[in-house]
Amino acid sequence: MPILVMKFGGTSVATLDRIKRAAKRVGVEVAKGYDVIVIVSAMAGETNKLVGFVGETSPLYDAREYDAIVSSGENVTAGLMALTLQEMDVPARSWQGWQVPVSTNSAHSAARIEEIPTDNISSKFAEGMRVAVVAGFQGVSPEGRITTLGRGGSDTTAVAFAAAFGAERCDIYTDVDGVYTTDPRVSNKARKLEKIAFEEMLELASLGAKVLQTRSVELAMRYNVKLRVLSSFEEQSDEAGTLVCDEEEVMENRPVSGIAYSRDEAKMTLVSVADRPGIAASIFGPLAEAGVNVDMIIQNIAEEGRTDMTFSCPIDQVKRAEKALSEAKARGEINYHDLVADTEVAKVSAVGIGMRSQSGVAAKMFQTLRDEGINIKVIATSEIKISVLIDRKYMELAVQALHDAFELEKA
Amino acid sequence: MPILVMKFGGTSVATLDRIKRAAKRVGVEVAKGYDVIVIVSAMAGETNKLVGFVGETSPLYDAREYDAIVSSGENVTAGLMALTLQEMDVPARSWQGWQVPVSTNSAHSAARIEEIPTDNISSKFAEGMRVAVVAGFQGVSPEGRITTLGRGGSDTTAVAFAAAFGAERCDIYTDVDGVYTTDPRVSNKARKLEKIAFEEMLELASLGAKVLQTRSVELAMRYNVKLRVLSSFEEQSDEAGTLVCDEEEVMENRPVSGIAYSRDEAKMTLVSVADRPGIAASIFGPLAEAGVNVDMIIQNIAEEGRTDMTFSCPIDQVKRAEKALSEAKARGEINYHDLVADTEVAKVSAVGIGMRSQSGVAAKMFQTLRDEGINIKVIATSEIKISVLIDRKYMELAVQALHDAFELEKA
Repeated sequence: MPILVMKFGGTSVATLDRIKRAAKRVGVEVAKGYDVIVIVSAMAGETNKLVGFVGETSPLYDAREYDAIVSSGENVTAGLMALTLQEMDVPARSWQGWQVPVSTNSAHSAARIEEIPTDNISSKFAEGMRVAVVAGFQGVSPEGRITTLGRGGSDTTAVAFAAAFGAERCDIYTDVDGVYTTDPRVSNKARKLEKIAFEEMLELASLGAKVLQTRSVELAMRYNVKLRVLSSFEEQSDEAGTLVCDEEEVMENRPVSGIAYSRDEAKMTLVSVADRPGIAASIFGPLAEAGVNVDMIIQNIAEEGRTDMTFSCPIDQVKRAEKALSEAKARGEINYHDLVADTEVAKVSAVGIGMRSQSGVAAKMFQTLRDEGINIKVIATSEIKISVLIDRKYMELAVQALHDAFELEKA
Repeated sequence: MPILVMKFGGTSVATLDRIKRAAKRVGVEVAKGYDVIVIVSAMAGETNKLVGFVGETSPLYDAREYDAIVSSGENVTAGLMALTLQEMDVPARSWQGWQVPVSTNSAHSAARIEEIPTDNISSKFAEGMRVAVVAGFQGVSPEGRITTLGRGGSDTTAVAFAAAFGAERCDIYTDVDGVYTTDPRVSNKARKLEKIAFEEMLELASLGAKVLQTRSVELAMRYNVKLRVLSSFEEQSDEAGTLVCDEEEVMENRPVSGIAYSRDEAKMTLVSVADRPGIAASIFGPLAEAGVNVDMIIQNIAEEGRTDMTFSCPIDQVKRAEKALSEAKARGEINYHDLVADTEVAKVSAVGIGMRSQSGVAAKMFQTLRDEGINIKVIATSEIKISVLIDRKYMELAVQALHDAFELEKA
């Protein structure tokens, strides 16, 4: 029988009633003839409670114990989902990560899945079981200890199972009903996309549109897993939600698919840096070592042997960046007159695979912002994305204006 | 280094503060030079919460899923205890049942431990680890599924580890400070026992003095594990609590060690049963099949081919017993005029290994009850126990009178 993977996030299994509702959705797919692998998160709030316990007990905790503790919430949901399905007369049983086993590396709290053997679950399907309920987010290390895959890791569990079992599709049930052209809270013209390419979804995810864990999208792209995002709180048809798929399957041929934004950005400028070959390495080496995630970088044209160097990073890493740079200055590795941090900025990005083949997208974006009187502080581009850093107070305005300019409200 | 097993029950690990307190007790033993195996229960309330979830989801639940769900609370405590010890600079790590592995049979929810390999934990002790924290109550079946050992099962986990590792002692930390001559809530003359024999503890446990799981005492007796019951809420010396040990080590030479009672008893009488060979089997066969735990049995002298048959059973099994007997009557297997249930009774028992060698204990017990005007309805005796069924309203009086008569308040 064809296999379907269905993943239910924390809000979708927050109560016994919601678990029942999710189980009914699973029952619909079973009735269609699918053998279903259900991946569950912990009941909403449980993981946070456990993370809180760990933080209170041990601020610099042993990640192996952290993983053993926080993975327990998923085990509870998996068992309850299996029981709920059994009550509906659907043959089902639960698996914890180590029982499959979901083999990962030893990078506790951010482990990567290395192998998912299918024989164990497949033989149960062959015996007549119709649903395998698997605790998401967790695996087991080569040392036999429990690992977790990082926040949102159940998405990755789901995609990895879909890849391993050659599933027809991987449905991610969540509290939103799909991927939108932009955040509906910022623009009421936001439109739900029927389809979106993996590459676009990756850019949107990493830009803060937190529908899917980034790694799950990478994995889906690599193994060409059809990924569907849909709401567990609405009646669903086969065409519901948004399908994240190969670029060839996305029919819309427009340059921009969505406008993303991020408020958690800071702009930092090293004023009057002594310019010499290798200066960039001297600046960004120490930042990388300090764990600062540098995003956009610009260097002004050098004048009389000195230049300004500007970069952006997450706002909560500003202190760490300042420390790393002042220490590098003290060691004589770099020389600058001043370090200026601007924490009142936001990043707005236009994303679309259509950009590759259509020109004039950047020009249109800059013109739209100019027409609204919004000053651009930093620009960065990739093949399918143009990002600008602007004053944070203009963020909503910029998103709305760009959404209009690229006519994203039109299907 | 010598090994000590320390078990902390649910109330002893109910909050992060109490876990810290328990960890400090562990630290004291580590400082003395012990390698310690800590067995933990779930934080008080957690297991009940999970059991509630299961009951609400599926009244006739799959015990394999039940076990997978309710075992998760212990995993959380094990990790938190390990982290707390690490914070105190005590090298520690947690083990879940399947990681040891604690091998059990497949009797889900009431599994029996079959093997505990020591190599895994011992090699960590050899590397310098000082505390192995093990999630109690759970194991893994030959099929690789999680099992649980029944309510109070963490006691059994603790004793099994003490036996497997040849521990010097197994300390059970709980919310009482030892085993008493009777329930202090019933008699203010109740005295804490310094030592009690395994056999006596077994009788007391099965009589409802719920300090230790019965199976843990059986196991301790079989492997001669020194078992100590003590409070986790008081400062403790090496002589604190009550030592449950081999009968030879119990110095006190008195006939009765304690007075136990149970309120949850019912007396059932089959009036005027047709007496013939095999009639007892015809009555108690169907009761056993119906899962009725018959405790005491008496048969009156037969007159003119008919007799009365009386037995006691737990009060919540009366309906089941009535059904089983009336069905047996309908099938013509037994014949009686009436079935009378008396649910206003209580069982009071005197327990002591000294009874074996001292006569007159039963006589003294019956005389004491007669002097108080208490009528005895049923009597049952074993080598080290005399039990009587009386009107429930006299229970406290009977316990107090017997406690006085056998001078149990005197050390």
